[in-house]
Amino acid sequence: MTIASTEPLTRAACEQADAQDPLAGYRSEFALPEGVIYLDGNSLGALPRAAVERGGTVLAEEWGRDLIGSWNKNHWFELPVRIGEKLNRLLGGGDGGCVATDTTSVNLFKALAAALRIQAEDAPERTVIVSERENFPTDLYITEGLIELLGAGHELRLIDAPGELDGALGADVAVVLLTQVNYRTGALWDMVETTRRIHDAGALAVWDLCHSAGAVPISLAGDGADFAVGCTYKYLNGGPGSPAFIWASSRHLGRAVSPLSGWWSHAKPFDMAPGYAPAADARKFLVGTQPILSMATMEVGVDLALSVDQDALRAKSLELTGLFIRLVEERLPGHPLTLITPREERLRGSHVSFRHPEGYAVMKALIDQGVIGDYREPEVLRFGVTPLYLGYADIWDAVETLRRVLDDELWRAPAYQTREAVT
Amino acid sequence: MTIASTEPLTRAACEQADAQDPLAGYRSEFALPEGVIYLDGNSLGALPRAAVERGGTVLAEEWGRDLIGSWNKNHWFELPVRIGEKLNRLLGGGDGGCVATDTTSVNLFKALAAALRIQAEDAPERTVIVSERENFPTDLYITEGLIELLGAGHELRLIDAPGELDGALGADVAVVLLTQVNYRTGALWDMVETTRRIHDAGALAVWDLCHSAGAVPISLAGDGADFAVGCTYKYLNGGPGSPAFIWASSRHLGRAVSPLSGWWSHAKPFDMAPGYAPAADARKFLVGTQPILSMATMEVGVDLALSVDQDALRAKSLELTGLFIRLVEERLPGHPLTLITPREERLRGSHVSFRHPEGYAVMKALIDQGVIGDYREPEVLRFGVTPLYLGYADIWDAVETLRRVLDDELWRAPAYQTREAVT
Repeated sequence: MTIASTEPLTRAACEQADAQDPLAGYRSEFALPEGVIYLDGNSLGALPRAAVERGGTVLAEEWGRDLIGSWNKNHWFELPVRIGEKLNRLLGGGDGGCVATDTTSVNLFKALAAALRIQAEDAPERTVIVSERENFPTDLYITEGLIELLGAGHELRLIDAPGELDGALGADVAVVLLTQVNYRTGALWDMVETTRRIHDAGALAVWDLCHSAGAVPISLAGDGADFAVGCTYKYLNGGPGSPAFIWASSRHLGRAVSPLSGWWSHAKPFDMAPGYAPAADARKFLVGTQPILSMATMEVGVDLALSVDQDALRAKSLELTGLFIRLVEERLPGHPLTLITPREERLRGSHVSFRHPEGYAVMKALIDQGVIGDYREPEVLRFGVTPLYLGYADIWDAVETLRRVLDDELWRAPAYQTREAVT
Repeated sequence: MTIASTEPLTRAACEQADAQDPLAGYRSEFALPEGVIYLDGNSLGALPRAAVERGGTVLAEEWGRDLIGSWNKNHWFELPVRIGEKLNRLLGGGDGGCVATDTTSVNLFKALAAALRIQAEDAPERTVIVSERENFPTDLYITEGLIELLGAGHELRLIDAPGELDGALGADVAVVLLTQVNYRTGALWDMVETTRRIHDAGALAVWDLCHSAGAVPISLAGDGADFAVGCTYKYLNGGPGSPAFIWASSRHLGRAVSPLSGWWSHAKPFDMAPGYAPAADARKFLVGTQPILSMATMEVGVDLALSVDQDALRAKSLELTGLFIRLVEERLPGHPLTLITPREERLRGSHVSFRHPEGYAVMKALIDQGVIGDYREPEVLRFGVTPLYLGYADIWDAVETLRRVLDDELWRAPAYQTREAVT
């Protein structure tokens, strides 16, 4: 710990911590605007400088000059597999298989369908999917859609708190779908212990890593996960809407069936054979032609993430989120801020959330002051902490700005009262 | 017709036709390499010059500078709908709804599932999907995957020739899935007449426009289509793997259900409500967050396509494909080239294909001579004609190069005998 919880908190102490930060050098890899403290990397990660050049090369040289030849010459064909292999390493996927492709929602559809089918063969009495009511909505929506498409016989069972999981794990449960870090509260599931309980109950574990990949050390194979999906545009800094990933354990990879059996998943796509035969490896989860410009540019962020020591990243992440919580509580007393992120480090991801009755207006005012977090219904101020491009003094300055917004009631300005779409 | 079929064919006549070509100005909108005649725009369209700047702006300014704020400020949220509306105009979609999103394969899954569900409600005895064995394989693979996911009760019935369609349209047929222009032969279905026959038989028509959008005038609403999907990286010049589109007729839009019910299809995605409720319009076909860099850059190609008079485009396309056929047949006699593209204009799309027993090696040799077409199994030399950046003299020069490759047997070189993945 660079800033011990017993030390008095000062900006100078934060600067000192920055000076000793082994990850401080990563800041220069990102192109962040002047005068901004960016606490929304949990929604859209910042731009790696190298991504600008990579994107330009794909446009002008690979597309413009090499044209169709780029599929071979510039290895466009291999991108989903090559980046998938990198993600497999980053996420501790072991002998499992991973590809970069499509969106998290589409990949979740594939993973759930594959898991349900395995259970239908092995334990047909298991027809329930368990998840959390507080899960990111698309996880629940996709599950609903799949259940409806499959016809009668499946059910989505929602728990209202992590403590309800064991009670929900009846003999009728096929799959448990959990997001490792909750998008709103930042609460972190213990993957190894939770997966063990799920397996003990005879169910399969599908993990959504959207808010943990690149922020928390992950060991999918070591922790026993069955399937996993996630996005690359948050802590992996892949760019807006960059392609997502899907991973399957080596226990299921050979047997798993993707219902979205497009030609990229075919064992021999260029034979153009009329009958479908899936690839044996993770390519079976591909569907159609991927957005190469977004995907090639995304690889820059994945490479950066792979270059970072994940334990050092986690240590700094916990220090910064802990600092944020302590600063708010020590320096902003008297304001109606309620911490909804777990204080216990082993239960915390890499963002911090407070409820405030005027959360929406407060966040708009804060953004206008150059501190970019985001707002989530209901009343939640969300602050993402990305250790690659944030330092200790940034956290100090962000909280001081929040103090000014609240002390001076800047959020009361009329311009901050009107809602617009927010991400 | 600029080059009448009675005129003797000379390069000078081609140059004369170029000089009178009302679309000749479009050539300068594209960044094509020197010394290349690009006849593969039916696989990957060429780079519009403006796309380079657009991509750079999205990277450096929208992502790098405006960060998360770009979802509102730079209208990222609206891209799928805004581009979808443009495609709806281009494709004569009328009161139907269109969004740009995902891949053709994924969109086909949505369209087929929606069409089957409508039939399950209206005519549950209809459980067969009719398509062509010669359809692009992913269409058949996706259909197979959906049928398997839905469980027993559906069947894929393949016809071997267009003339077999009526015979296949029994009282058990729910949906007919056809690709308007065949990827291999370039054969064109008459959409209005075929859709009428499909409707007369009580089935719904799902059209795949991959090889026709941007190359052939299309009137989805006027022709009575029920659903349509297609890609944007061929004749729409959207860039490698740029997002695809899905369209539904106004007759079905309100009622259609997408099985991929991700949060972007929700009526109020940012309410983060736990229960799913689809949007009433074409947004219901969205799923997850789209690859913004690829999508924003793609819009440049769509805008170019919208600026072109579709009848003038079609007239030039037919002239160039007709010229190609005539030149090959008049100037390359004695070589084992078999035309597999319809001679009749009303049955021809915008590419020309010949079989040659050594097709693979011939195409590799031709590409090395600067004429880029592509190869498709079995034995097919495929030449895409994109009237926006090709002229009459280009066609002359391409055929002359093919003549040299064949006359001089350049294709016999050992380097051309080894297969690699081709697109």
